[in-house]
Amino acid sequence: MTDFIYLDHAAATPMSERVLKAMQPFFSERFFNPSSPYLPAVEVKRSYEAAKDALARTIGAKGSDLVMTAGATESINLAFTAAQGKVLVSAVEHQSVLEAAKKTGDFELIPVNRHGMVDLSALQVPYLQKVGLVSVALVNNELGTIQPISDIAVLVSAERRRRLQAGDKRPIYLHCDASQGFGLLDVNVARLGVDMLTLNAGKIYGPKQVGLLWVRPGVRLQPVVVGGGQELGLRSGTENVAGAVGFAAAAMDAKKHAGSELKRLAVLKKLMSSKLETGISDVMFLGSSKKQLASFLPITVPGVDAERLVFTLENDGILLSTGAACAANKGARSHVLEAIGLSDEEASGSLRISLGKLNNEANVAAAADKIIAVIKAEKARIKGLMK
Amino acid sequence: MTDFIYLDHAAATPMSERVLKAMQPFFSERFFNPSSPYLPAVEVKRSYEAAKDALARTIGAKGSDLVMTAGATESINLAFTAAQGKVLVSAVEHQSVLEAAKKTGDFELIPVNRHGMVDLSALQVPYLQKVGLVSVALVNNELGTIQPISDIAVLVSAERRRRLQAGDKRPIYLHCDASQGFGLLDVNVARLGVDMLTLNAGKIYGPKQVGLLWVRPGVRLQPVVVGGGQELGLRSGTENVAGAVGFAAAAMDAKKHAGSELKRLAVLKKLMSSKLETGISDVMFLGSSKKQLASFLPITVPGVDAERLVFTLENDGILLSTGAACAANKGARSHVLEAIGLSDEEASGSLRISLGKLNNEANVAAAADKIIAVIKAEKARIKGLMK
Repeated sequence: MTDFIYLDHAAATPMSERVLKAMQPFFSERFFNPSSPYLPAVEVKRSYEAAKDALARTIGAKGSDLVMTAGATESINLAFTAAQGKVLVSAVEHQSVLEAAKKTGDFELIPVNRHGMVDLSALQVPYLQKVGLVSVALVNNELGTIQPISDIAVLVSAERRRRLQAGDKRPIYLHCDASQGFGLLDVNVARLGVDMLTLNAGKIYGPKQVGLLWVRPGVRLQPVVVGGGQELGLRSGTENVAGAVGFAAAAMDAKKHAGSELKRLAVLKKLMSSKLETGISDVMFLGSSKKQLASFLPITVPGVDAERLVFTLENDGILLSTGAACAANKGARSHVLEAIGLSDEEASGSLRISLGKLNNEANVAAAADKIIAVIKAEKARIKGLMK
Repeated sequence: MTDFIYLDHAAATPMSERVLKAMQPFFSERFFNPSSPYLPAVEVKRSYEAAKDALARTIGAKGSDLVMTAGATESINLAFTAAQGKVLVSAVEHQSVLEAAKKTGDFELIPVNRHGMVDLSALQVPYLQKVGLVSVALVNNELGTIQPISDIAVLVSAERRRRLQAGDKRPIYLHCDASQGFGLLDVNVARLGVDMLTLNAGKIYGPKQVGLLWVRPGVRLQPVVVGGGQELGLRSGTENVAGAVGFAAAAMDAKKHAGSELKRLAVLKKLMSSKLETGISDVMFLGSSKKQLASFLPITVPGVDAERLVFTLENDGILLSTGAACAANKGARSHVLEAIGLSDEEASGSLRISLGKLNNEANVAAAADKIIAVIKAEKARIKGLMK
């Protein structure tokens, strides 16, 4: 593949040169086990701790409150061990959150509106009485909808206060998977008001299989992986020093350019959406127009088969997908589109366009033209079949 | 640290140039999510599967029977979910196996002899009746003792046959952590006769935080990390393509040179041990002289403080450790040395010398001379204190 236009940044991002350069010394030179006693190993351990501190600073936290993991999925699994009582997750959560919720054996879905925004009325105090954990993603991975996390935090706090006053010692926690959104939005644990936060390096031009769980002091977790006692006993295994260093480099880089990148992406998104709106009479833009991350442009064209479009567009060098990229998603209807009330016909024509560093005005405009042409051709083909 | 002699290959190994080169394309060019639908992503998925196949071939297995993980610790945790009934682990297992065993709530230690070799009489059929899982490492990580895995497999098989004949449907499995030994010894799942096998890339000049669990078809596991359903649902999370490719490159490289490297290391070990034996009158060589991996040379000098030696030697540029490198090991007495019956005095003077690619005759000879000098000086110091 030499020439392509990538419109699937929500699925994966290329590691940046700067990130790779930061990681490189830890591959072959500074390869020591951070738990070894001699100075070069102690220095590696220090670099690891420094990377954690730098990462933590990007979310207004301390490095010692981070548990480094092999990615968002593991972080989520670890967060869910804190649940004592029922778990509430939004109906549009990522598969990893839904599966972690199912594993607890006691969970309920929080309904969402047609933009995929959680229904706050379902989180009022009376409904939280048996709840031990609420988990909502910062940005929905199919719709780009930005959830009102700090409003949810207020409701969780109210229930916590009620318990305190009632002498009820059961904890209630709020976990937020900020894998999508981190690097572009302000993600500050205090301002969000969360108790646990999941981040993923692979979505922000950092290394894959590197994630973290920020844990507010006092939250009690059960380790998912036991062993040598690394990460304060919460996640054993020789530390991924190169991974943490790369993650920190990616996070700091993203934070530095978040403002300008967000503006740039908003312009590209506007360009794409205007073209699509003009070119395809019945295109529907999914998600909220106001509360949607600038990198997301989920659309649907009722009646066409989006999987066909994806393969046809691929021949034109346009890479995008119908929704989330994970093994469980293959061939199944999206639970997200179902939750926001799309009909089968509407859901079958949905494409998730997600923009990022690999995009510019020229390739977004070119991609829009090709998407329009392919959809028009597909509609003509369907019309022909119906004759 | 510019100049040092590394004698701690059992703790960590530098990634080889060849491995890094194999991984490189998957960082920034072929960065796609293996679950995405378009061809470049499908090709990445194929490279991932090809890496798994190549890895599997090095142990006489199929790629589809490997579960890729974030390292040996996670692999071990996953293997232990297969246990129905009591778990038996050797008294000299790595901390990660001991902790995974404790987590099951029903485990016993298999006693070992003074070389750290498991006592096969404790694994006779009558003792296995309530056992669901036996787990023994191929090579002990402190002593280098090579365990009689295929003999253990025969005993486990006998118990399995007994159950079959008795109409008893409870499974019994044998898991082997081959993190130490893989890359030098013949590790073939059929010849070993195991049901599950853990391997670790970070010990064979591959990437850190990359491991695998080979699982014989029919063995039932519970996923430790749930989510998107990758690795046939046994381990969710976006696949670590670069990691798997690097692991495969490291494994193939190791297998190709295992014979010659083993001979080379045996020569170096002989050089080191002869020098130490001549230079230090009361040095004790730990582990079995016959059944010890050529890269290991654990020693003890009764009465001296090994931690002091490690720090003094570090000043001379000699990097080695007192035992296993993990967070749980700090300051605690080694359970391995206790299990083989060393007195406190003997255990306190123990050093684990582990050889590898960074060693040659010149630096091994130089290191031996420095170790001898430092131990002599330390003994003189102690003698002075006693006056």
